[in-house]
Amino acid sequence: MQTLGNRQSLAAILKTRRQKLAEQVSCPVILWSGRSSARNFPANVYPFRASSHFLYFAGLPLENAVIRLEAGQLLLFMDDASPDSALWHGESPNRGAIAAEIGADEALPLSELRHWLAGTGTIAVQDPKNYFYQASLLERMLAPATRPQNLDLEVTKAIITLRLSHDQAALAEIRQAAQVSIQAHRAGMAATRNAQIEAAVRAEIEAVFTANQMTCAYGSIVTVHGEVLHNDRYHHALRSGDLLLVDAGAETATGWAADITRTWPVSGQFSPTQRAIYDVVLAAHDACIAAIRPGVEYREIHLLGARMIAAGLIDLGILKGQPDDLVEQDAHALFFPHGIGHLLGLDVHDMEDLGDQAGYAEGRTRSDRFGLGYLRLDRPLQTGMVVTIEPGFYQVPAILNDPERRARYQDVVSWERLTQFSDVRGIRIEDDVLVTTTGSEVLTADLPTTATAIEEIICA
Amino acid sequence: MQTLGNRQSLAAILKTRRQKLAEQVSCPVILWSGRSSARNFPANVYPFRASSHFLYFAGLPLENAVIRLEAGQLLLFMDDASPDSALWHGESPNRGAIAAEIGADEALPLSELRHWLAGTGTIAVQDPKNYFYQASLLERMLAPATRPQNLDLEVTKAIITLRLSHDQAALAEIRQAAQVSIQAHRAGMAATRNAQIEAAVRAEIEAVFTANQMTCAYGSIVTVHGEVLHNDRYHHALRSGDLLLVDAGAETATGWAADITRTWPVSGQFSPTQRAIYDVVLAAHDACIAAIRPGVEYREIHLLGARMIAAGLIDLGILKGQPDDLVEQDAHALFFPHGIGHLLGLDVHDMEDLGDQAGYAEGRTRSDRFGLGYLRLDRPLQTGMVVTIEPGFYQVPAILNDPERRARYQDVVSWERLTQFSDVRGIRIEDDVLVTTTGSEVLTADLPTTATAIEEIICA
Repeated sequence: MQTLGNRQSLAAILKTRRQKLAEQVSCPVILWSGRSSARNFPANVYPFRASSHFLYFAGLPLENAVIRLEAGQLLLFMDDASPDSALWHGESPNRGAIAAEIGADEALPLSELRHWLAGTGTIAVQDPKNYFYQASLLERMLAPATRPQNLDLEVTKAIITLRLSHDQAALAEIRQAAQVSIQAHRAGMAATRNAQIEAAVRAEIEAVFTANQMTCAYGSIVTVHGEVLHNDRYHHALRSGDLLLVDAGAETATGWAADITRTWPVSGQFSPTQRAIYDVVLAAHDACIAAIRPGVEYREIHLLGARMIAAGLIDLGILKGQPDDLVEQDAHALFFPHGIGHLLGLDVHDMEDLGDQAGYAEGRTRSDRFGLGYLRLDRPLQTGMVVTIEPGFYQVPAILNDPERRARYQDVVSWERLTQFSDVRGIRIEDDVLVTTTGSEVLTADLPTTATAIEEIICA
Repeated sequence: MQTLGNRQSLAAILKTRRQKLAEQVSCPVILWSGRSSARNFPANVYPFRASSHFLYFAGLPLENAVIRLEAGQLLLFMDDASPDSALWHGESPNRGAIAAEIGADEALPLSELRHWLAGTGTIAVQDPKNYFYQASLLERMLAPATRPQNLDLEVTKAIITLRLSHDQAALAEIRQAAQVSIQAHRAGMAATRNAQIEAAVRAEIEAVFTANQMTCAYGSIVTVHGEVLHNDRYHHALRSGDLLLVDAGAETATGWAADITRTWPVSGQFSPTQRAIYDVVLAAHDACIAAIRPGVEYREIHLLGARMIAAGLIDLGILKGQPDDLVEQDAHALFFPHGIGHLLGLDVHDMEDLGDQAGYAEGRTRSDRFGLGYLRLDRPLQTGMVVTIEPGFYQVPAILNDPERRARYQDVVSWERLTQFSDVRGIRIEDDVLVTTTGSEVLTADLPTTATAIEEIICA
């Protein structure tokens, strides 16, 4: 955990990032942090989340602040808190103190911003209210972040280049998020046998995030219905014989995310059928991680995962044929319909506010194939990238009961054999992997993946 | 906990509310639920919170839905989930099933909505994106919810009238939120002696909300710096000798809130000075609750609380003079600068999206006085209202170190005596109180308030 990033000052980290940015762009860059959004009334807001691009270069989740980056220089625009704010919110550091902490060359009130906008490029923020504010200040066309134009496009490409490969300071943050997420999953496993419903396990997991002053990087999935891929309800009873799928990751105070999935038996013991499928998914997981190194196409990792799933299901008598053939016809996607993973960084799907601009190499677009179209990352891997590897097996009724698919795949699926695995609704195993010069490092390796090790934690 | 509300069907509850609304308005009423907001990228949203006005008449937190209420009839507009959604989010109940559950007379897709808007009144939603969508569909001026015009004003007044006095179904929900909040505060108290920082206590409190499938009705305050009134950081170490101020309340799945504050000693034992001030605040709390009954002006309750604080501080030698005189000069507000409480319901500050329209009786506006201007409620109490009672004592540097105030109050404050209470930075005691025909019922009474009882829970 002790890395260069922990010892470097925030100002030094940010200065290096600015200098790298200056090598990539010809124009000044201006980035807004955004403002908080009302939940049910103006004073009751959602927890503020600063724009990730702002966080990357400003280092602190400052609300309603703007930075201007030019030739390695940093200007900070923000207003000091009002005297009334001191009454309600306490004394906060003033603009000058924050500027010193982040190494800004100058700090100005927001009213000065309008003098510093000419010729700048930016990235449009997510929130519509702030987007209109941003556009009105710039006094020019501002396309959404997914379709930047002109200078904004140049800035977007430059920031993608930087953020694709993490520096040591970023990795130190991701490692912290990973360690807290591991602790949270362990707490969830330990709580499962005494829990009555999914929500009770979720509570234990998120309490670890909160106690460590972190937040959820995304809505946690804690479900005995793993076949519902984006499950956001927590009301089901936990029954002996169920598998509990948990996809939950912490986010540090400055925005860096982890993303971990484990699937464990409520009883503490996998059934033979559950264990058989679990080991198929784990073999795919391990093979994909072993294949990670700079220069490898992530799409090939995905296809490797798909072949491993297919091969495992052939061994179990669920699929029939050859792995390569089955993957070519997308038969694997009957049971593994999503991508093998995605970029991880300041966003859990890193830079997904930019659409596919970060995830897909220039000139590449999403495939129409069912077994490839959900892939979020299609680039050669490079040193310093962090990606998730998250193969899975699911029995999704909307897929498996679809008459068209049943007809198309009637010769390659043994539907009768499949019925013997009805206690496996969904399994996913997900780790966060750093691409290193020599191969990879699993940042979440301290959380076991084998069925036996997981059973031991639950029964401890 | 078993009330009529628990036994009535949702459809029956909503029908009664619609019929009451029909008695108050001449026009059809149309209400939007809203849509979720992006956090850092479009697929990573904040947990969806439906508009409270929608929840009041629709009963379920449906995303991107609209209801039309006319003469007791209910029309539901929403789109069924797409087939793709079934893959990712599982099968969801279709429009027809939801319509049956809430007793809608008809259910239509959103595309039909435009035929049903003529002559309707509405309340503008909070989120700007949805506000623009709402306004564009209505094809007319739509002022913000704080300043409604014409039919929207009529609708706003009618809904305020209904929501000011809670029906049994609403009270059943608020009671559930209160019980879970009580359990959460107890968990926080029990965890304090082993906790190192504020965040660890917050984690235990919010875990109880989560385990009970509830959310935070507002950002929890868990702080050893109670003098910062709206504290939203949790990083301070807990030290023996500190008081921990916890203001945290749960919200049920359908949006009803509780709001409880307790202040307890980290060590499990109040110091004599802490206990002395605590008892002053508690006496104010108890006196205010005892004064609650229909017809009493809430402003008088506030002034009673202020006098009780003043009287208690006179007894301790901190203030000098007569309570009435001190309150008239706002001297109480040096230590108790906020209002005695607010409306509670679907919003923790109920209907505060409407500005002061719900909190202030028609024709009344906020006072300019420092000791009254922060009062959120200025109406005669009526049966079925739920209000908070939350007196406090704080040593806010921004107030007490203000040279102007020190000069103005130099004769009524014993600054020297005050220094002996330096271990009391902030104390607040808050309960949720239902106005009944004969007086009041404290909905949060199961959580003790006395210093001795709190010490016992912490040391148990």
